[in-house]
Amino acid sequence: MSRIAYVNGRYVPHREAAVHIEDRGYQFADGVYEVTAVKDGKLIDEDRHLQRLARSLRELRIERPMSDAALKLVTRELLRRNGVRDGIVYLQVTRGVARRDHAFPVGARPSIVMTAKRTKGPPPKAVEEGVSVITIPDQRWARCDIKSVSLLPNVLGKQRAKEAGAFEAWQVDRAGNVTEGTSTNAWIVTEKGEVVTRKADEAILNGITRLAVLDIIRSEGLAFIERPFSVEEAKSAREAFLTSTTSLVLPVVSIDGTPIGDGKPGPFTRRLREYYQKHMT
Amino acid sequence: MSRIAYVNGRYVPHREAAVHIEDRGYQFADGVYEVTAVKDGKLIDEDRHLQRLARSLRELRIERPMSDAALKLVTRELLRRNGVRDGIVYLQVTRGVARRDHAFPVGARPSIVMTAKRTKGPPPKAVEEGVSVITIPDQRWARCDIKSVSLLPNVLGKQRAKEAGAFEAWQVDRAGNVTEGTSTNAWIVTEKGEVVTRKADEAILNGITRLAVLDIIRSEGLAFIERPFSVEEAKSAREAFLTSTTSLVLPVVSIDGTPIGDGKPGPFTRRLREYYQKHMT
Repeated sequence: MSRIAYVNGRYVPHREAAVHIEDRGYQFADGVYEVTAVKDGKLIDEDRHLQRLARSLRELRIERPMSDAALKLVTRELLRRNGVRDGIVYLQVTRGVARRDHAFPVGARPSIVMTAKRTKGPPPKAVEEGVSVITIPDQRWARCDIKSVSLLPNVLGKQRAKEAGAFEAWQVDRAGNVTEGTSTNAWIVTEKGEVVTRKADEAILNGITRLAVLDIIRSEGLAFIERPFSVEEAKSAREAFLTSTTSLVLPVVSIDGTPIGDGKPGPFTRRLREYYQKHMT
Repeated sequence: MSRIAYVNGRYVPHREAAVHIEDRGYQFADGVYEVTAVKDGKLIDEDRHLQRLARSLRELRIERPMSDAALKLVTRELLRRNGVRDGIVYLQVTRGVARRDHAFPVGARPSIVMTAKRTKGPPPKAVEEGVSVITIPDQRWARCDIKSVSLLPNVLGKQRAKEAGAFEAWQVDRAGNVTEGTSTNAWIVTEKGEVVTRKADEAILNGITRLAVLDIIRSEGLAFIERPFSVEEAKSAREAFLTSTTSLVLPVVSIDGTPIGDGKPGPFTRRLREYYQKHMT
């Protein structure tokens, strides 16, 4: 079965799937995206992803390319055509094709691209043994709450992590506090057993997995607080973990080479991961 | 004559010119660009543009798609095919097409896109009467010295200017100093007759027109200094102007509604524009 992509109203072979060189996504990073997990043929937290997409588009004043109902239909057809029952759907919407000029073009129609692929989730070793992160200065723009394709600093950060032999880079603001990873949200569990993650301000993306984990924490009656935490606090935390659509809940066992707790995935993170996996099914 | 674009080794009709949906320029803003002016068939400051391109690529560790000599040949062929003697050449290089993953892909070859079009330069009214600018917070990332396509904040800023009836938005850093416009460099002439523009640090793009204007100022023995200036200082300046490849040297006669000097283009800016036009021929 060869891969099929959805591009502006058509299902096309993935290798031929193309957009115009003057699509504003290409020339200006003037677009947004979503990545949704698919588990046993079901889209995980689909409505929340669509709500966040609508918000990102609204913030950038990009027209919605179609209704949520239509998006859902296209998504399902794409999954069917690609035979994906476990994997991810990638959706990108840009301001469309227009003669190059920074300001919003008049009359351009938004472009929409969707792909689906099978994925296996994070490597079992990462889940069992945990992952390491490094910390880097947060060099991104002031509106990281918008899920835009303006991801160049994230690319550079992830590459730094990779070259340092780490799974992720936690970005640190001017105050010395962790904002988030380059494609994941950052969490710690304090010595007192309190879960801490940054409030969803304009400095971070409000992850859908983040929201689901907060729901779980609330419904289980666990102690938590949304506030910034420093690199120092993270290094001396009892546990640390990260969340994302593709990583789910992943234990962080080392920050800049400093082991977290006893350097092994902690019981809280393990439990949370199990809860989250239940949430997915 | 229908427009022709250059895309990854081929000259193609502009309306069919396309890149793959998984080009990293589209999904990650993982690419850089240059816009070079063409005057009477000659490329203005071509070598400086190519040097800056090479620097941007080096900073992002994107491979150079071809030698400068080859780039020059392609540029000339594109100008010939499009019959452009006065206009601009747009060149974009991205990290190439790869399965989506933030870190640098292994083995991807950079994508290169080039277009040429006729332009007339800034409107005569803008040149004769000057333009107005507004000021906005600089929301961009920390490496604006790299000419990347990560331009979403610039897009939003230019749109704000447009809606305010202004030509440009001058971005202001946390210290209250002007960094630059969304696609132009910012300058003032103080009461003492000193030309001031921000030093080319990581907060601004080192404009090629900026460099040419600095050359002119130096060779004419005019007083100048590279340092930050505040919005207040700009509003009380004797003259203000902006520079870019497409605007050349354009008088700024109002900032946030405050007239600069007597609210008309100043003699210094006028003279500088003439010098720059000479430089172009």
